[in-house]
Amino acid sequence: MKKQDIKPQAAGISCSPFTSSRKIYVPGKLHDIQVAMREISLSPTKINKDNEVENIPVTVYDTSGPYTDPGYQIDLQKGLPRLREPWIRDRNDVEQLAEVSSTYGARRLSNPALDHLRFEHAKKPLKAKNGHNVTQLHYARKGIITPEMEYIAIRENQRIAELKQAAQENDKGLFEQHTGFSHGAHIPPYITPEFVRDEVAAGRAIIPSNINHPESEPMIIGRNFLVKINANIGNSAVSSSIEEEVEKAVWACRWGADTIMDLSTGSNIHETREWIIRNSPVPIGTVPIYQALEKVNGKAEDLTWEIFKDTLIEQAEQGVSYFTIHAGVRLRYVPLTAKRVTGIVSRGGSIMAKWCLAHHKENFLYTHFEEICEIMKAYDVAFSLGDGLRPGSIADANDEAQFAELETLGELTKIAWRHDVQVMIEGPGHIPMHMIKENMDKQLKSCGEAPFYTLGPLTTDIAPGYDHITSGIGAAMIGWYGCAMLCYVTPKEHLGLPNKKDVKDGVITYKIAAHAADLAKGHPGAQFRDNALSKARFEFRWEDQFNLSLDPDTAREFHDETLPADGAKVAHFCSMCGPKFCSMKISQEVREYAEKGMEQKSAEFAEKGKEIYL
Amino acid sequence: MKKQDIKPQAAGISCSPFTSSRKIYVPGKLHDIQVAMREISLSPTKINKDNEVENIPVTVYDTSGPYTDPGYQIDLQKGLPRLREPWIRDRNDVEQLAEVSSTYGARRLSNPALDHLRFEHAKKPLKAKNGHNVTQLHYARKGIITPEMEYIAIRENQRIAELKQAAQENDKGLFEQHTGFSHGAHIPPYITPEFVRDEVAAGRAIIPSNINHPESEPMIIGRNFLVKINANIGNSAVSSSIEEEVEKAVWACRWGADTIMDLSTGSNIHETREWIIRNSPVPIGTVPIYQALEKVNGKAEDLTWEIFKDTLIEQAEQGVSYFTIHAGVRLRYVPLTAKRVTGIVSRGGSIMAKWCLAHHKENFLYTHFEEICEIMKAYDVAFSLGDGLRPGSIADANDEAQFAELETLGELTKIAWRHDVQVMIEGPGHIPMHMIKENMDKQLKSCGEAPFYTLGPLTTDIAPGYDHITSGIGAAMIGWYGCAMLCYVTPKEHLGLPNKKDVKDGVITYKIAAHAADLAKGHPGAQFRDNALSKARFEFRWEDQFNLSLDPDTAREFHDETLPADGAKVAHFCSMCGPKFCSMKISQEVREYAEKGMEQKSAEFAEKGKEIYL
Repeated sequence: MKKQDIKPQAAGISCSPFTSSRKIYVPGKLHDIQVAMREISLSPTKINKDNEVENIPVTVYDTSGPYTDPGYQIDLQKGLPRLREPWIRDRNDVEQLAEVSSTYGARRLSNPALDHLRFEHAKKPLKAKNGHNVTQLHYARKGIITPEMEYIAIRENQRIAELKQAAQENDKGLFEQHTGFSHGAHIPPYITPEFVRDEVAAGRAIIPSNINHPESEPMIIGRNFLVKINANIGNSAVSSSIEEEVEKAVWACRWGADTIMDLSTGSNIHETREWIIRNSPVPIGTVPIYQALEKVNGKAEDLTWEIFKDTLIEQAEQGVSYFTIHAGVRLRYVPLTAKRVTGIVSRGGSIMAKWCLAHHKENFLYTHFEEICEIMKAYDVAFSLGDGLRPGSIADANDEAQFAELETLGELTKIAWRHDVQVMIEGPGHIPMHMIKENMDKQLKSCGEAPFYTLGPLTTDIAPGYDHITSGIGAAMIGWYGCAMLCYVTPKEHLGLPNKKDVKDGVITYKIAAHAADLAKGHPGAQFRDNALSKARFEFRWEDQFNLSLDPDTAREFHDETLPADGAKVAHFCSMCGPKFCSMKISQEVREYAEKGMEQKSAEFAEKGKEIYL
Repeated sequence: MKKQDIKPQAAGISCSPFTSSRKIYVPGKLHDIQVAMREISLSPTKINKDNEVENIPVTVYDTSGPYTDPGYQIDLQKGLPRLREPWIRDRNDVEQLAEVSSTYGARRLSNPALDHLRFEHAKKPLKAKNGHNVTQLHYARKGIITPEMEYIAIRENQRIAELKQAAQENDKGLFEQHTGFSHGAHIPPYITPEFVRDEVAAGRAIIPSNINHPESEPMIIGRNFLVKINANIGNSAVSSSIEEEVEKAVWACRWGADTIMDLSTGSNIHETREWIIRNSPVPIGTVPIYQALEKVNGKAEDLTWEIFKDTLIEQAEQGVSYFTIHAGVRLRYVPLTAKRVTGIVSRGGSIMAKWCLAHHKENFLYTHFEEICEIMKAYDVAFSLGDGLRPGSIADANDEAQFAELETLGELTKIAWRHDVQVMIEGPGHIPMHMIKENMDKQLKSCGEAPFYTLGPLTTDIAPGYDHITSGIGAAMIGWYGCAMLCYVTPKEHLGLPNKKDVKDGVITYKIAAHAADLAKGHPGAQFRDNALSKARFEFRWEDQFNLSLDPDTAREFHDETLPADGAKVAHFCSMCGPKFCSMKISQEVREYAEKGMEQKSAEFAEKGKEIYL
């Protein structure tokens, strides 16, 4: 399946707009910005044969980027608009390099055998001027509200407060919601740019935004914001091509991925990543140790700090916005995994463990940690402090190795913060439901409220083929408890590399988990979409129900499987119950009787000969 | 798609045994019984080139009935073996009727136009002798341990305690598990027949076991037992045939449904149900008001107590083991739903609400409740007290209407118990995560610890097409909190009638939810299967991993999508990471080093030229 000679073409990319949706751009007040979101138009509610009432459109947070904007001409060879470029330049603290800094990067660029693979229009990278720190955390602590921060505030609000203010009396109910229980989070009714700055300054939130990824639409990861999700893509030695990976990335964003990790371990990792970043509207994360391992032909013991350092620079200059770094896998912790059922299941963790034992030395990621900070602050790459010792089975959940590493990650967080480098903390894994909260509590305590970013957790081991579901349960719960970002799991987990369908199943499952968490936390405005969809459902506005859902295509397809005719889209039933048994239909009739007063209606009813057909 | 002229054929039925599995039958001690379960054989673990160690087989609870026993000859026309018949007869408290008692039933039997549809070998029904009460609750309260109770005790234990006792030292670890947190449940380390009797006597558990369904393998629904799941099948006016419904039932049992509800609302409900019951190894539930509504041509206001009573008898004499009865939809509660976003979403609830308003009278199910009890105790049909006023949207969660009905269900539970009629309580619905526990707490308090049986709950409304997942999250949580049975939701929820694939997706999702709950509750032995599967995973015994999973077919198929060759089944990697990056493979090497002592290994390692290939 290797199409190494073919560059990704626009023709292969998923880009049709969502039905009944349009991209809208909300302007900033402090800065010259246009914040992208999506507006879903609804059909009117029929009051009776002659009267109908308009339904206000619903705005939703949108990660699909310009791809779903029919006004945008996709050109993968050129990449996405470099929307952040003027903001970065205006800060006057970066310089454009004459050449890439990494040895490996330079070698790849000058190799003619790679010409057919290379993204041609890559610009020379930016880097912080000498003595300057370009992280959003640094700006936040200086009291500066960057364009990124304002973008985020507008984006997170989703215009819901404005829609509520403008709504007619009878629509106000759409904006009601249950109070929620946020386990100690503090989510304000309205997100201001100042609130964003404050959360970032406190380390409670991060804005992954490498100065070399100006195409990314700013987003925030933090407990007091909407719960986010990450989708993993990337080739392996056994599967996939550049074209497929770019399409997977765009596909994942289409369905709701807030960030993407490129976890490639196969061929041409460098070139593949360039194509992805240049065409990605969301921040990209990586695990640099993978590529470093490739450079030493898969021999973990041959890894060195120098090779790794060069890899960090290479990837930072391409525009990676966060690095998973397994600096918590300390030599002394490795033996704690000896009695585990599934040992070390993290790729990076197992690689570093092997290195430590082979050299009988402390993990070089740990010993060189401050040097890593120096690199990251020059480009604004955030740490995703890796959970190399996370449990890979229910049996290993919450064991000594896992929590020992967490303590170290807390220690490293403090060091990173001294450099104003942004930090989030990775988490498990496989955890039974009753042991999930302990993870959240310990992480909050050990890591100074840095955002938590978990993989699931999976709540049982017994369902390979369905691990998006076993983990979706745990993810929803830990999101409710305070986890800021949930790393998706696809149906292929434990079995093979995910294909496009798996990516979508994983993304939708995790959008569900994240949104269920937002509702349970009482995130302001979260219930608006649920209310609008349920109202549409109750009124048999089928198309509206589909268009408001996370996956309109599937909802429509499932409905049409048994009732495909156009008439069915205005029918007051579906094939589940048929016309006589539809509870919603009967419910409508019941409501009218109840509202008009019961006695009067009974008389009227008896008079009409008991015939009810509206 | 209506094949009304064709009787279900054995050829169309799913019946292949699970791979590497055999049906086993464990004998009773108190009674002459043979308890069916499934034993999965595993391949040995390779220690080195010449040595291997056997892995003990794993026993699992099995709902698939005789269909997966290759020694059993399926004959749908004859029905399953009537295994409970001798036990029922030996109690000497039933008589066989000369004719069916229900008017409608008699009419169907004597109608030649239905000959081509009818299950021919139906026997005349049994009924309690005058003055006798034949419910398991009645026997339990008299201190009697029935064969059903002993069957259940053996079945629930899954032979795990015996396997643990017989295990070698190095296998003892497989039986370890986390303590769990059961929110006040009391699950003993070993289930005895006396414990079963005591739980049933207390009303904390029910054994759905109509004397006219002797083919059913006894099972129990209660907080202190394994969490159970129900699958809904049944035709509608718009879809499906008898043959398809029988196959759906067998298919649902194959994948793990503990009970099945036949919710048919279309044609030939009576005949369809007979075919299903005669061929079902699990108890069958129904909602009698549906068929009653069909008898009055869909006009709810034309329903009468007499028609309903006749329907109860008709269905009880066929062998239905539990009835959903919406006796809690009281006239005064109906107006409480007027301001809801989605009104009344329960079919039965909306039907009764309509009847109440049309007649301006109290719900006849409520007013005739004790007469219903008299019928049920003559056949041992259990109540599933219906949640007619459950919320059908997040907005309506935990509202006044819902909890008012719950209070009434508590009141009705006491009445049913005075008649020694078994009771379980139905529950919601659509509930955000933070409001789920309140449901469990209120139900325990209001209903005297009668078992809770919820539909999900769905934790958000925004994902039609994926409501098995939105609800799987809520179901896992409420199962952990103490819910005894979880009613599945399929991907087709809100959109149409489920097909076979949907049924399987729903069943597997709910098996996951139920098992995740068992693990979190610390149910003794629950973690055995997870441990065995994870051990197989870690040792790259791929076939064992598949065979131990809930759906071996899909797990194997997903793996083979990218690595189909036989060699891949012993490979120490899969296509997710490939041979160089497989964390489990590297983990194995790390373990050996850690165990042998780190210093020694480093030296050895350096000596061997850093070549690690085992």
